[in-house]
Amino acid sequence: MIVIMKPSATMSQVSAVIGLIEEKGYRVHLSEGEERTIVGIIGSGAPINKDPIQLLPGVDRVVPVGKPFKLASREFHPDDTHFPIGNVMIGGHGLAIMAGPCSVESRSQIIETAYAVKEAGAHILRGGAFKPRSSPYSFQGMGEEGLRYMKEASELTGLPIITEVMEPALVPLVCEYADILQIGARNMQNYALLHAVGRSQHPVLLKRGMSSLMEEWLMCAEYILSHGNTRVMLCERGIRTFEKYTRNTFDINAIPVAKHLSHLPVIADPSHATGKWEYVGAAARAAVAAGADGLIIEVHPEPEKAMSDGAQSLKPEKFAALVLEMKAIAQAVGRDIEVSNKVLA
Amino acid sequence: MIVIMKPSATMSQVSAVIGLIEEKGYRVHLSEGEERTIVGIIGSGAPINKDPIQLLPGVDRVVPVGKPFKLASREFHPDDTHFPIGNVMIGGHGLAIMAGPCSVESRSQIIETAYAVKEAGAHILRGGAFKPRSSPYSFQGMGEEGLRYMKEASELTGLPIITEVMEPALVPLVCEYADILQIGARNMQNYALLHAVGRSQHPVLLKRGMSSLMEEWLMCAEYILSHGNTRVMLCERGIRTFEKYTRNTFDINAIPVAKHLSHLPVIADPSHATGKWEYVGAAARAAVAAGADGLIIEVHPEPEKAMSDGAQSLKPEKFAALVLEMKAIAQAVGRDIEVSNKVLA
Amino acid sequence: MIVIMKPSATMSQVSAVIGLIEEKGYRVHLSEGEERTIVGIIGSGAPINKDPIQLLPGVDRVVPVGKPFKLASREFHPDDTHFPIGNVMIGGHGLAIMAGPCSVESRSQIIETAYAVKEAGAHILRGGAFKPRSSPYSFQGMGEEGLRYMKEASELTGLPIITEVMEPALVPLVCEYADILQIGARNMQNYALLHAVGRSQHPVLLKRGMSSLMEEWLMCAEYILSHGNTRVMLCERGIRTFEKYTRNTFDINAIPVAKHLSHLPVIADPSHATGKWEYVGAAARAAVAAGADGLIIEVHPEPEKAMSDGAQSLKPEKFAALVLEMKAIAQAVGRDIEVSNKVLA
Amino acid sequence: MIVIMKPSATMSQVSAVIGLIEEKGYRVHLSEGEERTIVGIIGSGAPINKDPIQLLPGVDRVVPVGKPFKLASREFHPDDTHFPIGNVMIGGHGLAIMAGPCSVESRSQIIETAYAVKEAGAHILRGGAFKPRSSPYSFQGMGEEGLRYMKEASELTGLPIITEVMEPALVPLVCEYADILQIGARNMQNYALLHAVGRSQHPVLLKRGMSSLMEEWLMCAEYILSHGNTRVMLCERGIRTFEKYTRNTFDINAIPVAKHLSHLPVIADPSHATGKWEYVGAAARAAVAAGADGLIIEVHPEPEKAMSDGAQSLKPEKFAALVLEMKAIAQAVGRDIEVSNKVLA
Repeated sequence: MIVIMKPSATMSQVSAVIGLIEEKGYRVHLSEGEERTIVGIIGSGAPINKDPIQLLPGVDRVVPVGKPFKLASREFHPDDTHFPIGNVMIGGHGLAIMAGPCSVESRSQIIETAYAVKEAGAHILRGGAFKPRSSPYSFQGMGEEGLRYMKEASELTGLPIITEVMEPALVPLVCEYADILQIGARNMQNYALLHAVGRSQHPVLLKRGMSSLMEEWLMCAEYILSHGNTRVMLCERGIRTFEKYTRNTFDINAIPVAKHLSHLPVIADPSHATGKWEYVGAAARAAVAAGADGLIIEVHPEPEKAMSDGAQSLKPEKFAALVLEMKAIAQAVGRDIEVSNKVLA
Repeated sequence: MIVIMKPSATMSQVSAVIGLIEEKGYRVHLSEGEERTIVGIIGSGAPINKDPIQLLPGVDRVVPVGKPFKLASREFHPDDTHFPIGNVMIGGHGLAIMAGPCSVESRSQIIETAYAVKEAGAHILRGGAFKPRSSPYSFQGMGEEGLRYMKEASELTGLPIITEVMEPALVPLVCEYADILQIGARNMQNYALLHAVGRSQHPVLLKRGMSSLMEEWLMCAEYILSHGNTRVMLCERGIRTFEKYTRNTFDINAIPVAKHLSHLPVIADPSHATGKWEYVGAAARAAVAAGADGLIIEVHPEPEKAMSDGAQSLKPEKFAALVLEMKAIAQAVGRDIEVSNKVLA
Repeated sequence: MIVIMKPSATMSQVSAVIGLIEEKGYRVHLSEGEERTIVGIIGSGAPINKDPIQLLPGVDRVVPVGKPFKLASREFHPDDTHFPIGNVMIGGHGLAIMAGPCSVESRSQIIETAYAVKEAGAHILRGGAFKPRSSPYSFQGMGEEGLRYMKEASELTGLPIITEVMEPALVPLVCEYADILQIGARNMQNYALLHAVGRSQHPVLLKRGMSSLMEEWLMCAEYILSHGNTRVMLCERGIRTFEKYTRNTFDINAIPVAKHLSHLPVIADPSHATGKWEYVGAAARAAVAAGADGLIIEVHPEPEKAMSDGAQSLKPEKFAALVLEMKAIAQAVGRDIEVSNKVLA
Repeated sequence: MIVIMKPSATMSQVSAVIGLIEEKGYRVHLSEGEERTIVGIIGSGAPINKDPIQLLPGVDRVVPVGKPFKLASREFHPDDTHFPIGNVMIGGHGLAIMAGPCSVESRSQIIETAYAVKEAGAHILRGGAFKPRSSPYSFQGMGEEGLRYMKEASELTGLPIITEVMEPALVPLVCEYADILQIGARNMQNYALLHAVGRSQHPVLLKRGMSSLMEEWLMCAEYILSHGNTRVMLCERGIRTFEKYTRNTFDINAIPVAKHLSHLPVIADPSHATGKWEYVGAAARAAVAAGADGLIIEVHPEPEKAMSDGAQSLKPEKFAALVLEMKAIAQAVGRDIEVSNKVLA
């Protein structure tokens, strides 16, 4: 950290800053300019808290130098993280395609959709059994019954499952059914939940919060990683801005930035990032071109009858066409999406 | 709800919309303009899901008409909600002043601060025992030990306690010690937690999420109210915007708007809303002038030694002066802050 | 427009609304629901001002139905607009690539860069002679001298020129030199300037303002189009959000949305949208995949010596590689970027 | 400025940074930590451009130390700026109240309103003759005819006039009629206009742009001040955020922050900051409590007939009541609003 003193700072104010830093077991390095003095903090112990220094008289600003996350950082772990889920290698050469309905609504709906998305080329089945809803009066998901249907769909199709877990107490239950635990945007900073999924050692997809800075997002990954759970994916799903024509603003920059700052795989969610099915295709194609390691896309056999997120769900046939478009772009950027010959036919 | 058809919509598309609405048990009212047809939905059953309608061919937009929250709404409950906590009536003529450190750091620190804020005119003691921190490596709070010290400080000074609860499993424990449960901004949409504090029947202060719309905030209050827990306060603590000179942007408009839309008391948190102690006074005075029913302010005997939020904490003497300034403004807007004669002396 | 009355509105309040509407020469259509009355406004005259109606007692909300822009709208003009600039058809099958330095800094710099970007496959030369700078003390551009050097570079290479014009009085001068007038983000709502470039009948590239809604952007295009100047391009260059890791947030959704709402060609500016050269490539590839009709990219022979925007400028060799990457993606989405055989070699 | 090298930076990379800095005529100060080297830049010449340094290999970040604005800064000019307009001292002990319609609509409207706002306690008459409108099809203002009517209203009532000027070419005309030139939010960074009003030596009210950072706003003031025109007021009028319930988000923090960073008077515009007349009073009271030096408020005799901004305009009698409320708060914070005895009666 660096402490920038005010031009008007006195020598005794500089001394007080030095005293406080040394008291914490650090050393200082002084740089006395013509206009102001700058105090560098040297030492490799625990990061020093900047607030107390900021408050000393004569201090203009305190500037952090290092990154606050470590396990999630590419500096610490230069190589890309990759790990298999079912038949797909997350973070590998091929992109992982996750698809399915927003909510599990019935046994037949999820089984039918599972077959349809598999046919279209998806590698992983998504579906919500516990749903975070803005209103207490809206459909809250089928709960464990929904998980059972997903499991059945998984067994029938061979697709692994990703589903959201919303509270620490339910982590063990959801782990019984799911291959990947999803942390929703609203819960990105639900630290008790992050600890719980970290301890579970289950693969986790961590959605970025609606107004989360890159650094905050990576700090939340750090919470999970700090339990030795290394199978963590980051998921950009759009941020909240002044623009309301789309449900969220897809922060496409976040994809290369997250991959630059971190070694973790980055998944894009074009469904939430746009909120309107008409734009899901363009956003999905863009995500592949920007370097995403996978996509999670809402697909529903009858969007107009969906109990949630119908407006942003693709019909299976549109999704099938999109997979081929994404594959062409993946190849154009030196990657691929592995699909069966049947899909290509 | 109102369905606005596209100018190009055909009669059979309009019929399909009508069919879907009637199928759900509603009636329709048609308005055929020169350019387009508008379909009104009539009926008082469960609110109809707009997504499926939005997806029908020929539909331009679906416009909600009513408000999605009910128990929290002033339409439903025209009179201001008020309830006593200790000696202060929350939502009454007098404003409630809550003050104390960000974190409980030691027995002596919280007891000393409790006496100091009481001396200065505070009615309620704030302090964090379980702390939501961006980094897993930062101080996470003293936990139950901190609650015990707060309780002791409360018994010594007679000030009721407000403290944050971060996970459903800890609600019973925190209820043993605290007079008011605080839901932090990061947890505003932690629905499991909202249900848990709702069921507890304990008074709750619900902070607005960093990027929460007014309606979403009130929907979260609705989650708590739906358990019959009517002692809910809303707390505006700043929102996240492009401006970074201050930690957050204090949405002062939110105070009159929340009071307009809802009957619940509205508390302002000028400490988080600015993030810098230099601006806490101006923000606090503004909140009183805008109609807040109370304030929650960070006070620390030695901010430069605080383990968290030192930069936004006031020293007790500055806080004492601020209470008198706020009292003068409260009186100027026809309200008051009740303080002992000692404070006035 | 639709007027939604409050549930508590009286019959005489409804009558007052009807009276005001009819007074303006419109007709009304009443829809009396169980909870509230809704008044539709019928007529095809000038759009009615909603503010006065909003203010009448008993009115809850006024909801606009149509779009406020017409000439820019795809409803009015279903086919894509396309027009030639030099050898490239803007809005056609092939994408237009515009490249060059942020500022013209010297005769040799712009001529050298012009040759380099042409070699790399660019169709149009960009460069700033009049620069909008945050500080009055920064380099403000070379002015007319810069335009002369650009013209010379254009004549030597055959590349048409795009350059920014910042004030109405300079439109005639800039038209003498430039093939396309650029309106910068800060000037998007500089209406005098929009009128001036509209009247000039010169092709215009209209950058989206930093915090401009889709509708506002299209209304600004409408200002230009209303002068009969139909050669208008929209340019998405990133919006301002809470995220500060990148200079701006590239609103990739804006590309398909603008193309959905409007027939005008959409150009992407990945340089400003990211602000860091490391991310320009990913953003450029994403823009092509999302359907952009062209790109404008900052290229500088020696970014570390650039007088402005060095941090987001590509070196010519990186730009050359990027053109080929973009071409591959363009082909993957059924379009192309036409470049000479020399580039492909 | 300070250059933070990457932990991995080599000695020759550090040397290259030093070389570039010294080449520009600055000196350096090296601070070699255990993890990384930090290079301080010493010298008091023209500010050095950080982009080229940022681009050198091994550089992590460049951190500016000083402020980019000088004439507007309180460091440079510690005392509050104050100057008289008519009978009121802007930036003095008493607050300046500016009021009037959004647009001048007719001779009688502006004269009637001028008398009404004077009666209610206003010191300055506002009114728009040239109007920036989102749509080219909306009423664009009465132009010079409107200025003439304002002048007449001014002569009849003795109130000085503030009105917006939108383009450089019209500055001389508007100066003939107006006592204060207003720069609107959309034109905050219209640099040609800033230069023109700077040169005019006329008093200027500079509205903050919708998404303007504090620093950018002050840099725009610097443009005006750099012409020796010292009579500049800053005006906070709300910023654009994700919240849409109100037209803008009133950044109340901006008032104490602007007064901290700058010596210029700060005016608040609660009308645009809320966009709904119901909330104008609360916002106005808050602004006074936060330390504003004045307010500019939209008042219209018949808001429901206003040609623009009716929804946010107060009727004269509500405005009159608000002036007394603001006066009470001004007195509570040690200031005042001077009004005639007639107003107090």
